[in-house]
Amino acid sequence: MKSPMRKKGLKIKKEDWESLHVHISSYNNFPTAAGLASSAAGFACLVFTLAKLMNVKEDLGQISSIARQGSGSACRSLFGGFVKWTMGNNADGSDSLAIQLADEAHWTDLVVIIAVVSSKQKETSSTSGMRETVQTSALIKHRAETVVPARMLKMEEAIANRDFASFAKLACSDSNQFHAVCLDTSPPIFYMNDTSHRIINLVEKWNHSEGTPQVAYTFDAGPNAVLISPNRKTAALLMQRLLYQFPPNQETDLTSFVVGDKSILQDAGVRSMKDIENLEPPIEIKDKVPHQRFTGDVSYFICTRVGSGPKVLTDETLALLDPVTGLPK
Amino acid sequence: MKSPMRKKGLKIKKEDWESLHVHISSYNNFPTAAGLASSAAGFACLVFTLAKLMNVKEDLGQISSIARQGSGSACRSLFGGFVKWTMGNNADGSDSLAIQLADEAHWTDLVVIIAVVSSKQKETSSTSGMRETVQTSALIKHRAETVVPARMLKMEEAIANRDFASFAKLACSDSNQFHAVCLDTSPPIFYMNDTSHRIINLVEKWNHSEGTPQVAYTFDAGPNAVLISPNRKTAALLMQRLLYQFPPNQETDLTSFVVGDKSILQDAGVRSMKDIENLEPPIEIKDKVPHQRFTGDVSYFICTRVGSGPKVLTDETLALLDPVTGLPK
Repeated sequence: MKSPMRKKGLKIKKEDWESLHVHISSYNNFPTAAGLASSAAGFACLVFTLAKLMNVKEDLGQISSIARQGSGSACRSLFGGFVKWTMGNNADGSDSLAIQLADEAHWTDLVVIIAVVSSKQKETSSTSGMRETVQTSALIKHRAETVVPARMLKMEEAIANRDFASFAKLACSDSNQFHAVCLDTSPPIFYMNDTSHRIINLVEKWNHSEGTPQVAYTFDAGPNAVLISPNRKTAALLMQRLLYQFPPNQETDLTSFVVGDKSILQDAGVRSMKDIENLEPPIEIKDKVPHQRFTGDVSYFICTRVGSGPKVLTDETLALLDPVTGLPK
Repeated sequence: MKSPMRKKGLKIKKEDWESLHVHISSYNNFPTAAGLASSAAGFACLVFTLAKLMNVKEDLGQISSIARQGSGSACRSLFGGFVKWTMGNNADGSDSLAIQLADEAHWTDLVVIIAVVSSKQKETSSTSGMRETVQTSALIKHRAETVVPARMLKMEEAIANRDFASFAKLACSDSNQFHAVCLDTSPPIFYMNDTSHRIINLVEKWNHSEGTPQVAYTFDAGPNAVLISPNRKTAALLMQRLLYQFPPNQETDLTSFVVGDKSILQDAGVRSMKDIENLEPPIEIKDKVPHQRFTGDVSYFICTRVGSGPKVLTDETLALLDPVTGLPK
């Protein structure tokens, strides 16, 4: 998400603020309503932009606790790289904020492939959420008080040491446990579906056959998989496996089926829809019948990597508001 | 499961046992390999029959600890009615056995509808199981040591008082938590699929709209739903809801789509495939679009109730072995 704004407006004094009128225009280049935290990106951008406009002196950590009020995970999106969200000690959550553990330059080898799972049917709706889990799950307390704090320390260590094996084990276990306590909620919350389960099985089988984690998975509040590879080589092998098991529908073209950093696709040796059709089953499932292909179960893949936080764009031509009228272009 | 045997063979002395040759013939009238504990029924029948043949004097509880070694839950199947499986205190599990809480005459109003979920695709295989959960789940300890013992006491009370609301809440919560710790296993175990989730949502929405539990659900190590209604009237309303949301494929006939006690089907006002087609959406989802129908997602339904334990059949014509040759008929 980009936050273009008029540079000239940056120096507004506090006393002028009351009489100020603001036009907010927002553009999102990440899929919305796909359960991929686009609202976190949006709120982080909004709060960051307003803070710049209002000349706020507090550091990003303090600002993150404001973003958190729009959408919990928005506090993390104020930073690039690797970010932790601390619970804080105050009952009102006022000191619950985000801290950057390492910036995006710390571990540049990681490649992220996101599988956007198609929802052929309306997903099992859930107006409830973490609040109901806290109220009704008999397991969340043990998770929150014991399991997560210990895992957080190990995860910080794994990131500091760029230790992919530990990183992967922790990420996968914690994703599964998050969904476990969702299931332990009354009424139960299901975010993952059969396709999510199949992606997990694909990864688990591959990791098991190699004896060491090749890829980590994590699922947020939706069926989409975020898959993290330690390097481009492994990402290409993962891409082959994903495309083998989840080929696109006939009417889909390759350009819209794999978006983002398409070089991973080239590394995987896939240049056409025909190449996907002709993919061989990966070695770990080759001898197992049936190794079914689930055409159309994944809508598209996004290839990306660990990115940076919000930035003020100085190029006025990128502004979303017209410099003369102040209205959206 | 019936266990026909030759009555004349019942009085065998201990010293003769070594020279004895036994033909075992087994017949199962319950679907096998459907994740519906048919192996528990089989092992219970085998152990019960051998105990009768060998003139074992121990009570059923003791015998149940032998059945348990064939298939854990087989120990429960030695009794009818409501049965609990106690963990016991011995490290070798020798005192882990089943105890009957109440026989099948205690709560006769209950109606059980089992939805056998079709596995269009090979389900996410799992060679692992409870053993791996015990070894790798960070949540199983709290569940086993704290949650389950407390729930067992409440469940015994609910059964004793025929308190359906408590019974339903406990059954549903515990089913969900069992599957939660399966998901918290490394690698994670998924027994439920999208159809299982939809059945849960159907029940939860209905229960919520009525303000009090109309039906309880529980899922064993598979995607099939065991649904328990407090009486025939509610069972008929449940049947309507299930048939509305999960109608059969065109080529299926009603006789094989709903098996067992077909009178529930009559109570539901369903006499033909056309009647299923014409079912109205239930009131709690009527105004919500889309209320999709998932044709073919359930293979068939079994209508049954709380039954009795194993019995020796005295009618020789029912024997599975030929009385002259001793070989299977």
